[in-house]
Amino acid sequence: MATPQETTRILRRLLASGMQARAQRLLGRMRPADRGPVLSGLTPPEIRTVVDLLFQQHRAASTLTELPPELLPQIFDALGDQRLADILARLELDDLVELVEWLDEERREGVLARLPDRIHAELRKMETYPPESAGRAMITRFVALEKSMTAEQAIDRIRSVAADSESILYLYVVDDKRRLEGVVPIRQLVAGGPDRVMADLMIPDPISVRADADQEEVAQLVTRYNLLAVPVVDDENRILGVITVDDVIEVINEEATEDMYHLAGLSEEDRVFSPAHHAIRKRLPWMLLNLAATFLAAWVVGLFERTLDEIVALAFFMPVVAGMGGNGGIQALTVITRAIALGELEFSSGLRAVGKEVTVAIVVGAITGLVSGFLAYLWQGNAYLGLVLFGTMLATMAVAGILGAAVPLTLKALGQDPAVGSGVFVTTLTDIFGFAAFLGMGTILLDRLAA
Amino acid sequence: MATPQETTRILRRLLASGMQARAQRLLGRMRPADRGPVLSGLTPPEIRTVVDLLFQQHRAASTLTELPPELLPQIFDALGDQRLADILARLELDDLVELVEWLDEERREGVLARLPDRIHAELRKMETYPPESAGRAMITRFVALEKSMTAEQAIDRIRSVAADSESILYLYVVDDKRRLEGVVPIRQLVAGGPDRVMADLMIPDPISVRADADQEEVAQLVTRYNLLAVPVVDDENRILGVITVDDVIEVINEEATEDMYHLAGLSEEDRVFSPAHHAIRKRLPWMLLNLAATFLAAWVVGLFERTLDEIVALAFFMPVVAGMGGNGGIQALTVITRAIALGELEFSSGLRAVGKEVTVAIVVGAITGLVSGFLAYLWQGNAYLGLVLFGTMLATMAVAGILGAAVPLTLKALGQDPAVGSGVFVTTLTDIFGFAAFLGMGTILLDRLAA
Repeated sequence: MATPQETTRILRRLLASGMQARAQRLLGRMRPADRGPVLSGLTPPEIRTVVDLLFQQHRAASTLTELPPELLPQIFDALGDQRLADILARLELDDLVELVEWLDEERREGVLARLPDRIHAELRKMETYPPESAGRAMITRFVALEKSMTAEQAIDRIRSVAADSESILYLYVVDDKRRLEGVVPIRQLVAGGPDRVMADLMIPDPISVRADADQEEVAQLVTRYNLLAVPVVDDENRILGVITVDDVIEVINEEATEDMYHLAGLSEEDRVFSPAHHAIRKRLPWMLLNLAATFLAAWVVGLFERTLDEIVALAFFMPVVAGMGGNGGIQALTVITRAIALGELEFSSGLRAVGKEVTVAIVVGAITGLVSGFLAYLWQGNAYLGLVLFGTMLATMAVAGILGAAVPLTLKALGQDPAVGSGVFVTTLTDIFGFAAFLGMGTILLDRLAA
Repeated sequence: MATPQETTRILRRLLASGMQARAQRLLGRMRPADRGPVLSGLTPPEIRTVVDLLFQQHRAASTLTELPPELLPQIFDALGDQRLADILARLELDDLVELVEWLDEERREGVLARLPDRIHAELRKMETYPPESAGRAMITRFVALEKSMTAEQAIDRIRSVAADSESILYLYVVDDKRRLEGVVPIRQLVAGGPDRVMADLMIPDPISVRADADQEEVAQLVTRYNLLAVPVVDDENRILGVITVDDVIEVINEEATEDMYHLAGLSEEDRVFSPAHHAIRKRLPWMLLNLAATFLAAWVVGLFERTLDEIVALAFFMPVVAGMGGNGGIQALTVITRAIALGELEFSSGLRAVGKEVTVAIVVGAITGLVSGFLAYLWQGNAYLGLVLFGTMLATMAVAGILGAAVPLTLKALGQDPAVGSGVFVTTLTDIFGFAAFLGMGTILLDRLAA
């Protein structure tokens, strides 16, 4: 199979020599997801031409939804408002909502005004749900049936509505007020007999989510109960839409990226393919915050100028204190953040988790403290220095364990993202504590160390 | 809804007072995935009783597969070989393979010998595939049809085979040598008419994976092409089994956990619910390695003893150099590792990615270097100190960007896990470079700094 880069080169050559029909055939043979990378390698005029070709084949919409959203602005920039509106009008509502978010504020109203009224109204409705909620991720096409229908009648109904049957994995059984009563997996419909009624085939009391639920909650439900789709309901259990597993996988990947990024002080939009100036703008505020944090640590070290002046060897061990404390904190932080994301704390509890992390940190701190204390003694020939390093490591690792475990749990309890800023916060506090403990003990034992 | 902890308490009380029938009803009302956390909170004798109760209802197997695997040993310990074999015999092969891996070496053969011969043979076959490969994750129950079959005939076939239709989302069309020719989504079978033939309904040239492909590759295919299941084939394109999306979601979560853990120097099995002694044993080797790395940095600092003795203020800025370099390296590392995991490098390329990270690092290094150089000048009143800090930050951030981007890409190119050890390696090298640069420049400009 050709790499995306090779396909881009071929496509480019076809376009340059005016062989549009062949370019169209090449594009037609590709799967929607494979067109994304190719599109992202083109210049704006080329993008315009390719989108036109795809549009004629009703393939432009499905191609756009397959692009990483961070690449959308450059594609949008190459297209006029009317063309963009025509493409957007062909999308499922959840994809439309997502794409529109990446449109410049100034253009958004102009493009949306060109959408058919029906879609415009549905979009407005969807925008009433909170960002990253189930309501925004659902599609609004689904098959709702009455309890008394037979499998045969249900199959007929599906045939009549399902020009695009993409979303039909479950049928939803509702009462006369459209309240959700059960689900029938479509494979059940086939495997049962033609005369079985829905009341008989359905799984009663199905798992559903409220429209205002967080998308992370949806992802946890799908993962936990092995679902292919989750119905979205309002306060009165009336079905509003459906979230399918492919969208859930996107959410899972997004949330994992967010957590990893937040631990490193990165913003979600800072991706491998974002332009450098974009990455710089996103990273700079965090790095300046980190700089402030390191200067705070520097100031703490500065308080011990006289001690350092007396025993310069203390400075040698500062990397040991900071490196070990920082790593210990990040380990606890990673274990807890991941457990929160995967809903694993139900197998433990917040308090037990903190207790365990602290126990682990103290034992690991004691062992590495003994080793490093002994090494320091061998190197500098002063047993008190070894003792100071041992005490510092033990105390710093314990603090790292407490902070690493407690900070994300506290943020979570406060309704905040458990990972945002945790990394910088935990390592800074651990560093400051570690330096203060090490140099403080060094100051107290100054006479012994100078001996 | 009751929390798992509350349900555990109720269950415990029922068992203690001998109300087994009520305990059984309580368990029966729960979904398989909800029984896992409850089970994990019980004592060994309680586990034995609950598993017996579940087994009578044919629910023990489905409950075990819903537990985080790290909790399995304690459950296994509470069960005898025969009971365990009886439960395992009821599992899908992919789940069986996974569970058996968590069984103590000593017990494994004894338990496996008690499995029916057919399952034993299939299991042996499956173990010929590499760990974490598609062959190990597939289920071997699927529906294969001939091209000439009508939808009605296909539906009859499904009814005849599908006692448990869990895995039937697609039908696989094969030729007379069982080579995969196409797939028919089951919803297509329903939405088309009863007389349509498979050749007509099928999607030809479907996406498939070889049995020895890595499970991460399967996850990327499912994510990319929005599939519900992927057929697994041998070298000659003969269908061997199917991997379903629920297993793929597990793989996605596992791989994300692995990457996050590896960046922090953690082992995958060190989870929130693992006992403390287990976590200590897993973390200690990494922490000792990290200790060695920090001592290497300490030794480099020690080389500049005379410089530090002369200008003790240089020691104050060591946390700034290490903190900023380390964070810069981890940022580049995180962006690249995540891009590799999500297959996003096809939207860029390895070389372009390194180039971008270095550009970003240099610009961010220049800006934070200017700020920190100026702050250092204000604090210590020496312009040369500011200059040294500026130069160090610029160079260290550049090195951090290069290492953070190049290390995971190199590991990947060598066929290694891009995240294992990268974190410790990148931060150590960055720290050492940073200290050497800072104290080295300080040594060269010693006269100016002492002024």
